[in-house]
Amino acid sequence: MQLASRAYRNETREVKIGNVTIGGNTKNTLLIGGPCSVESEEQIQQSAALLKSLNLTTLRGGCYKPRTSPYSFQGLGLEGLKLLVKMREQHGLAVITEVRDATHVDEVIAHTDVIQIGAKAMYDQGILRACAKTRKPVLLKRGFGTTLQEFVQAAEFMLSGGNENVILCERGIRTFETKTRFTLDLCGVAYLQEYTNLPIILDPSHALGYRYGVERLSKACVAMGIDGLLIEAHPNPAVAKSDASQQLTHESFIALKSAIEPVANSVGYKII
Amino acid sequence: MQLASRAYRNETREVKIGNVTIGGNTKNTLLIGGPCSVESEEQIQQSAALLKSLNLTTLRGGCYKPRTSPYSFQGLGLEGLKLLVKMREQHGLAVITEVRDATHVDEVIAHTDVIQIGAKAMYDQGILRACAKTRKPVLLKRGFGTTLQEFVQAAEFMLSGGNENVILCERGIRTFETKTRFTLDLCGVAYLQEYTNLPIILDPSHALGYRYGVERLSKACVAMGIDGLLIEAHPNPAVAKSDASQQLTHESFIALKSAIEPVANSVGYKII
Amino acid sequence: MQLASRAYRNETREVKIGNVTIGGNTKNTLLIGGPCSVESEEQIQQSAALLKSLNLTTLRGGCYKPRTSPYSFQGLGLEGLKLLVKMREQHGLAVITEVRDATHVDEVIAHTDVIQIGAKAMYDQGILRACAKTRKPVLLKRGFGTTLQEFVQAAEFMLSGGNENVILCERGIRTFETKTRFTLDLCGVAYLQEYTNLPIILDPSHALGYRYGVERLSKACVAMGIDGLLIEAHPNPAVAKSDASQQLTHESFIALKSAIEPVANSVGYKII
Amino acid sequence: MQLASRAYRNETREVKIGNVTIGGNTKNTLLIGGPCSVESEEQIQQSAALLKSLNLTTLRGGCYKPRTSPYSFQGLGLEGLKLLVKMREQHGLAVITEVRDATHVDEVIAHTDVIQIGAKAMYDQGILRACAKTRKPVLLKRGFGTTLQEFVQAAEFMLSGGNENVILCERGIRTFETKTRFTLDLCGVAYLQEYTNLPIILDPSHALGYRYGVERLSKACVAMGIDGLLIEAHPNPAVAKSDASQQLTHESFIALKSAIEPVANSVGYKII
Repeated sequence: MQLASRAYRNETREVKIGNVTIGGNTKNTLLIGGPCSVESEEQIQQSAALLKSLNLTTLRGGCYKPRTSPYSFQGLGLEGLKLLVKMREQHGLAVITEVRDATHVDEVIAHTDVIQIGAKAMYDQGILRACAKTRKPVLLKRGFGTTLQEFVQAAEFMLSGGNENVILCERGIRTFETKTRFTLDLCGVAYLQEYTNLPIILDPSHALGYRYGVERLSKACVAMGIDGLLIEAHPNPAVAKSDASQQLTHESFIALKSAIEPVANSVGYKII
Repeated sequence: MQLASRAYRNETREVKIGNVTIGGNTKNTLLIGGPCSVESEEQIQQSAALLKSLNLTTLRGGCYKPRTSPYSFQGLGLEGLKLLVKMREQHGLAVITEVRDATHVDEVIAHTDVIQIGAKAMYDQGILRACAKTRKPVLLKRGFGTTLQEFVQAAEFMLSGGNENVILCERGIRTFETKTRFTLDLCGVAYLQEYTNLPIILDPSHALGYRYGVERLSKACVAMGIDGLLIEAHPNPAVAKSDASQQLTHESFIALKSAIEPVANSVGYKII
Repeated sequence: MQLASRAYRNETREVKIGNVTIGGNTKNTLLIGGPCSVESEEQIQQSAALLKSLNLTTLRGGCYKPRTSPYSFQGLGLEGLKLLVKMREQHGLAVITEVRDATHVDEVIAHTDVIQIGAKAMYDQGILRACAKTRKPVLLKRGFGTTLQEFVQAAEFMLSGGNENVILCERGIRTFETKTRFTLDLCGVAYLQEYTNLPIILDPSHALGYRYGVERLSKACVAMGIDGLLIEAHPNPAVAKSDASQQLTHESFIALKSAIEPVANSVGYKII
Repeated sequence: MQLASRAYRNETREVKIGNVTIGGNTKNTLLIGGPCSVESEEQIQQSAALLKSLNLTTLRGGCYKPRTSPYSFQGLGLEGLKLLVKMREQHGLAVITEVRDATHVDEVIAHTDVIQIGAKAMYDQGILRACAKTRKPVLLKRGFGTTLQEFVQAAEFMLSGGNENVILCERGIRTFETKTRFTLDLCGVAYLQEYTNLPIILDPSHALGYRYGVERLSKACVAMGIDGLLIEAHPNPAVAKSDASQQLTHESFIALKSAIEPVANSVGYKII
């Protein structure tokens, strides 16, 4: 760890996402919402409307799904990406989507405001090298089998290549426990906050894998004083084409925002 | 899971510890403090004084240390236990200590207010059976290689044997990550809160293994709405005979209490 | 690691089990067979007869079962132990059974030829200290969440206490993989063979948790040049009171012995 | 699992590698040797000469190194690939190299006899899709955080895309154990042999991470009746640019071949 370390720069880096800023002295916790996958214009319009109604600014939605099975829904691809762009144009939202592999990294960089490198692509140097050359923010998810050291090294690839806008995202690691989908590693977050200068966004939805505890976990995340939270919400989770069990309803998403605001405030942060 | 389940009883059980109560509708988060090991009367007096000065009620301290290596400090044994009893008599504190194996379980039951079953002893039926027969509260720590299912089954051993005062304690599981000593499993806590009726106390000190992030992690724990927090603090951590790297100074312990109180309040709980 | 290390003694220690010896220069691989649990005299007589018919010498069978759930079969206890003693008297077999906790360690030491410390009891100092005082061989199983360092330290407890007859047993560790019950750690075995002077016995039955691959895994174990193999076999696995899915039939046990003999010979060992 | 399953086809698929065949009824265990990285023509000529002297047929060597740190040696790239091609032309060896990401997958497919998909690239659909379209054999390594189910699904991606020449490679998973680099999962191999119809090659060098136990582990692997073994050997490991601690000397590689041959024979296989 060199450029990412607190030894090199002893404050969290500032990153601008659309019209808002996280890190630095902002004490902002960016609440990013949206469905696991972009499925249709109607669906993503509903997601955008939800965010607008809550004065939120950043919309997530997967277009290139890194599905392990060849028999699962693979995402809408470029068509989905264009729907996200439409949401930005119509609603002024910043949009974030995941790049699955190096073959479409350029089109993701071209169209989104934040490029998400997913857990399964975290070691992909085709992606890391392309993202090192852009100046757009990159949200780098920790692989579920990835050590903190390797995680920071992947960030270092982009920092040393010239992109200073790297955000770390912890989303759960794989352990022996099977009652939950993954194990959210908040000890690891404490380590990253102590030793690195990169903003940190947490993803409790993927970690737990079930709706029931996402709000409670989100409170825990926010209480650590983090730079953002990534929450999956779907207008109708029961018919979602992916991650049906963990996406919140819009009603629950609204409740979650209300629930985490006092917690953020109690540690001097605000939800934006 | 039967007696421990929310299907059987849909509210958190109340447990009385000394003069205070956790669980039920109390919304109390019990802050338990004290050193890793009872080392001397002078040391434990300082710990007791710290708690009294903060209006706290429950003192921890190890007497029978479950050290893996035969060449490490093994604890003061019964002598340490008597020092804890002295603290109860002099200061009115409830005391909690760990039972290491079945050979001294009866003396731990006889002298403490809460019997702690440590992570390494969690499957020990000699201990579980003895603790099933008492009515004193038992704090059952999850083994670091233990699934949530096995953890709840060990609690079930005591519940089905007649002791209703069982408290679960998550203290970190063993994963591939080595930058931190263990991985605190808050996804698991969300599961336990959803499916069991047992009070839950968290131990961030042992999970992280380093002082630097204990306060941040404690905020995360408290934000989940938990029944207690177990924090190691030592009058002089540099000379501690065990766990030197993770015990807080008394100054840091005082700061931690101040830092977690607003977080507890933000979720409707109070630190007691 | 001190007394257990190759730095201290650069050859595998010899341990005598009944009338046979393993370790040292013997190049013996002791095939230990028998059911998961002693269930009845008829059952254990059939097991003993199987071993005798194959010229094998050592019978295993659980009496004090370390079952996690209070609602599972807990073993026959002392009654089972007496059935094992009867087998020794009638058939001249050495017998090995597991001690579950410190409350019955003395009766296990008194009646068996080898004391087995199970994976869940590996840290139990009540057991370790009692076993340090006997001179009977102890088979110490690695806990499923136990590092190699802790495993060797537990052995060191007994060695430093005066019992030189300690045997290590790898039986699978807990990992994220769920298609198999545990993950047999043969890299760990390579480490133990390189750095310790203790005989090593492997338990592929518990590691895999299913009958289908026990023979293949046993070949792999034997090819490493090990001191013994622990295989569960039951006269009628379908009605076994514990571990029904992993116990071999007697027919399969016979086939396994035939299958592993040429492998043992190919690395200069013989199955005894 | 569909096309990869024994339910679909109840025998191991045959795959041709250069002039030899593995799988089917061949009972061949292909010993693949060579350095971690192609470093120079002189080095790779020595590796080729070693294989020829032992009547071996398949040369490995990394050109595009998936190094986590940006500050480590990244491989010779296309230049290294051309050196491998030269070895094929001069010595008639089949060559295998790893593809790191989708940006150079076409050049790897064009020049090698077997395309290796490394552990870190296993989920990369850019690579998987390209490899699905070729008919060249693909050696798919299991990710170190990858379940057996996901591993087989990645193979299924290629099978369902039309490439029937898929070989599975177990190379160790990441567990809590740190004395060894990874944990070779032979329980998983037993599962794959029972339930899939794909040839299996094992990589004990990467699993253990140290030279000392590679020969012992190789014997264990071979005893399971596998289709191949991938062993790293370097003319002078002390100066190797990557994986210095685990590469065998040529002398040790020769000894390893002699040591595993009788084991292979004892289970009816031959080393080719």
